Amino acid sequence: MHVIVVYDVPAERTSVYRKLLRRRLEHLQYSVFYGELTEGQVTAMKNDIQKKLEPDDSIVVFESSNPAAFEFSTFGDVDEPGSRFT
Amino acid sequence: MHVIVVYDVPAERTSVYRKLLRRRLEHLQYSVFYGELTEGQVTAMKNDIQKKLEPDDSIVVFESSNPAAFEFSTFGDVDEPGSRFT
Repeated sequence: MHVIVVYDVPAERTSVYRKLLRRRLEHLQYSVFYGELTEGQVTAMKNDIQKKLEPDDSIVVFESSNPAAFEFSTFGDVDEPGSRFT
Repeated sequence: MHVIVVYDVPAERTSVYRKLLRRRLEHLQYSVFYGELTEGQVTAMKNDIQKKLEPDDSIVVFESSNPAAFEFSTFGDVDEPGSRFT
């Protein structure tokens, strides 16, 4: 499924999430990760997030399980999401 | 449809996009907007982005047209996406 993860965490904790999310996703923008994962990978990632979570952290995981219903458009100076995996 | 917009633009241009995106979406995190829009609203928003776009700006619009296939999970200190509309 298509997965987008965004985080907003204290500056000193960005490296924790960057490292965690890079394991399975592409780093699309400063605090935005994107990728196509299996359900098992999504569950594992969520478990990893839960383990690292501290009270001031804010993370949202968006999932779209129907590839036909999912699309994106890019504007300006940006790599196409997914292009770094091909 | 469910729409997520993320931007990564030079600091002095964040206010341009914040203003533009707030017209139709909820400001979820620093550079992340979320909402449920009609196809017409998405088209209008994209036209607005195109008009404001400068070479160093980077914007990605994700769309999921099947509500049943779309879900999200939040971790930590974050409002549920959509909660500010209810």
